[in-house]
This record gives sequence, structure tokens and C-alpha cells, in this order.
Amino acid sequence: MAKFTKTIYYHDTDSGGVVYYANYLKYFEEARTDFFSRRGASIAELAKQGFLFAVRGVDISYRSPARYGQVIEIKTKLSRIGSASLDFYQLAELEGSLLVSATTKIACINTDFKPVVIPELVLNQIKNELSDS
Amino acid sequence: MAKFTKTIYYHDTDSGGVVYYANYLKYFEEARTDFFSRRGASIAELAKQGFLFAVRGVDISYRSPARYGQVIEIKTKLSRIGSASLDFYQLAELEGSLLVSATTKIACINTDFKPVVIPELVLNQIKNELSDS
Amino acid sequence: MAKFTKTIYYHDTDSGGVVYYANYLKYFEEARTDFFSRRGASIAELAKQGFLFAVRGVDISYRSPARYGQVIEIKTKLSRIGSASLDFYQLAELEGSLLVSATTKIACINTDFKPVVIPELVLNQIKNELSDS
Amino acid sequence: MAKFTKTIYYHDTDSGGVVYYANYLKYFEEARTDFFSRRGASIAELAKQGFLFAVRGVDISYRSPARYGQVIEIKTKLSRIGSASLDFYQLAELEGSLLVSATTKIACINTDFKPVVIPELVLNQIKNELSDS
Repeated sequence: MAKFTKTIYYHDTDSGGVVYYANYLKYFEEARTDFFSRRGASIAELAKQGFLFAVRGVDISYRSPARYGQVIEIKTKLSRIGSASLDFYQLAELEGSLLVSATTKIACINTDFKPVVIPELVLNQIKNELSDS
Repeated sequence: MAKFTKTIYYHDTDSGGVVYYANYLKYFEEARTDFFSRRGASIAELAKQGFLFAVRGVDISYRSPARYGQVIEIKTKLSRIGSASLDFYQLAELEGSLLVSATTKIACINTDFKPVVIPELVLNQIKNELSDS
Repeated sequence: MAKFTKTIYYHDTDSGGVVYYANYLKYFEEARTDFFSRRGASIAELAKQGFLFAVRGVDISYRSPARYGQVIEIKTKLSRIGSASLDFYQLAELEGSLLVSATTKIACINTDFKPVVIPELVLNQIKNELSDS
Repeated sequence: MAKFTKTIYYHDTDSGGVVYYANYLKYFEEARTDFFSRRGASIAELAKQGFLFAVRGVDISYRSPARYGQVIEIKTKLSRIGSASLDFYQLAELEGSLLVSATTKIACINTDFKPVVIPELVLNQIKNELSDS
């Protein structure tokens, strides 16, 4: 799985003393952006061309909390490729121990928020990732 | 279902021109806090007594986006009560039209992050809500 | 001064147990948006017409912290009107006690981020506020 | 000046198409944390020992906006050392061009939020930075 490192700062935490749970959606998105970028696909560039990747659904489970000053690792795996949508399976870990896991469903849409087929170039950039372990 | 109103400000949106998807988890949490508060249960007060309500999982679906300046409504329904956990089913709507729906699983934990039985007082304050439509 | 109420939720706080300091900039912005709205000027509507209000500078002082579950009051006063810019002086208070004060400089810009004269209609809606105490 | 790199993601931006202005306070804080860390002072570790660094004031000016997908650089300089307080001067730049500048006043406080003298060890770790250009 693709790896992405995230340092936890004060603004990531809440008064429970741990990372605020909604923030993992931000980290997972950063890791997906990095996943595309490392394969030559710029989400920012695709957006300028009118191809947006919108989150349609997230199923996320929280097992253990992270704290201020810790450095966590986000692991990202492309788990499904459709013609106009993608699924990602992602983990947040601290020193190899699972903190959070999530499946995120992404749709490719145009600037009118209508589903469109994922550009061939992008599919070619990522299609080999399905067999990645 | 219990209702909670949320005005969308600039900081709620992203450069896609719509509310950033992770922010709905914040709105749903605000609505749950309000849900407890209106039934006489203060999450802040319970936290001081050592009873914390931690999110264990969220399954959220995004159907339609909200935009800057809009006022959305969050509807909250308690969908399951366990001895040490609760499930909430929540909707975000704009003028009666569905934007986002989510089920959130909450565990009652102590300050060591271990599951504990929900205080009897709190159960009495919310148990009638299960039959609420 | 115009008044705006803000309830502090979990996501507003950090692991220091208090409201994360950058969040006051969000609350002050919400209060300014509300200030315009109550005088008949919609920032969202003006944005569609190509008039954006951009923050050019903030000078903010933190005296005392707010905590989860508290309800704070934001007071907003227009302290200067220029042809293409405005200054706001704002306070955050808890039960009459000062938490935070800030002066925010706002410029009216167009969609190319160039300064433009504030629309006459908007000036008429807010110009009486300078003498407001 | 000490340098810190920040990639701009979707959640950093607002519907104006640029980085939301309050977020620079987060980036500057991340850069200050990194500044301490690189000199052997862990803010997280000091917090456990009862020494907290609280922001007392920020004076920030916005010159030019950053956008999604850009990688900006935060430059950090310690501009004043007092017995119980520090001032930082920081810049956000894009390819050498100034975006934002800020002076941030930090107080060393204890867990009762009362000012305390900065630990000698920390002063020794950072005092040579004043002459740094």
C-alpha cells in the first residue's frame, strides 16, 4: 500500500486530548491526492480540465486515538475501479498499530456535478494499483 | 426527528465551491450535542464526570452539495441504544431536499478510553427517543 | 455593537482544553457576515456580482480562553469606512468578560483580486454604523 | 530563517478558490513547532512537564493568495526573547514571492494558564537564533 506520513499538531486535536475524529477524512484525502500525484495524475490539473473527484461515501471505523506530537502513517490502496468511480481502502497507523480504517467511494464528475467517465490517461496511471498488495 | 439549523460560512466551503465533505461530521456532532442538551444531558458536564462519548464509526453518503450562504437543517434520530453504545441516524437537508445522510456509532468510554455502561440518568433522558419518528 | 452568539463544540477546542486560537478568526468572520446580512447586504450575493471582501490584515489579542460547552458572544463594530476598504473592531466575551479582541482590515476586490470601490448600495446599508456605540 | 514546506490541499481552500485566511495561523504554528523540534525542544514534551506555549497575539498581513495544489514555504525567525515570552516573525512565500507575513507573541504559561519563566534548557536551545538572519 502507498504510504503517506502525517505529523499531528495542536490544531488536529480536541479537548479530549486526541485527534478530532473528522480530521482523519482530511488526512485520508491528503494521502489520496499524494497517491494520484506520485502516479503522475494531478487532481488540481484535472480540476482545471473540468474533471473533479467528489467523495460519494465514507465508511470509517475508529479503533485507537492519536495524540499531539505523534507522527502517523496513512496507507492507501485502490480497491475498486469503475468507469466513473473509484474506491479507496485506507488505514491510519501509529508505529504499525491500527488507529483508523476507512473505505471511501469517489465519483468522477464534471463542473455541473454530473458523473463522467474517468479520463483514459488517469485510468492508465492507476490501473496497475489494483493488484498492488 | 430532532432539528438543528446550520448556516454555511466561507470557512465551511472549499475551492470546489461547496461545503467540504468532512465538515458534515462537525455539523452532525453539533446536532447530537444539541440533541443531548435539549433532553437535559450535558456532554460537557458528563465529560467532567469521566463519561466520554467517542465516535467508533461513521457511514456517511453524500448526495448533493451545499454552498456558501445557505442555511441547512440537520435532522437527528437515535436509532439504537445499547448498554455502552448508541447509534444515531442523521440527515442534512436543504429546503427539504436531502444533501447527506449518516449513521454514527458512539461508545461511552472512561478517561482511559475503556468502554463503560452509559449512566442510568442519561439513558432515562433519551430512551423515549427510539420510538420517535 | 452588533451581537452574535457562538456555542463552543468539541471541534472548536484543542488538546490544551480550550478553543484553538485560530478559530476566533472564523467566529469573527461569521459575526461580520451576520453584521452585513442584518443590514440587508448579502456577502454571498455580492460575491456572485463580482464583489468580494478579502481580509488584508488581522491584529488579534488573546486574553482568556473559552472552553467546550460554553456560549460566547461576539461583538462587532465597524470602525472605519474607506472607498475600497473597511475596518472592523470585534470582541469575544464570556458572560461580559473579555476573551479576545481584534481589528480586521477588509478590502473590496473583484474576481481578479484587484481592489474596487465598495458598491454604493452597501455603503448606504452600513454607513450609519460608524456612529454606533 | 528556518524553512518549513506546506502543501495546499482541498480542505485548506474556501469557495473563493484560495487558501482560507485563518489557515495561515495553523501553518505558522506548525512551522514554529518544527522550529522548536529541530533545536531539540519538543512542545509536546514540555506540555507534559506543565510548560505550555500560548499565543497572546497575532498581527498578520495578507498580500497574495495561495491555491489548491501549490506548495508554499513558511519562513520562521525568532525576533524577541523575554523571560516568559517570545516573538516570532514569519513569512509564507510561493516561489520566493511573499503571500503572508505575521508577528506572533507567545507566552510561556503553566497548566493554570499563569505566566511562568521559560525553562533554561529551552532558552539555551533557541537563544542563538536571535542573531540568525
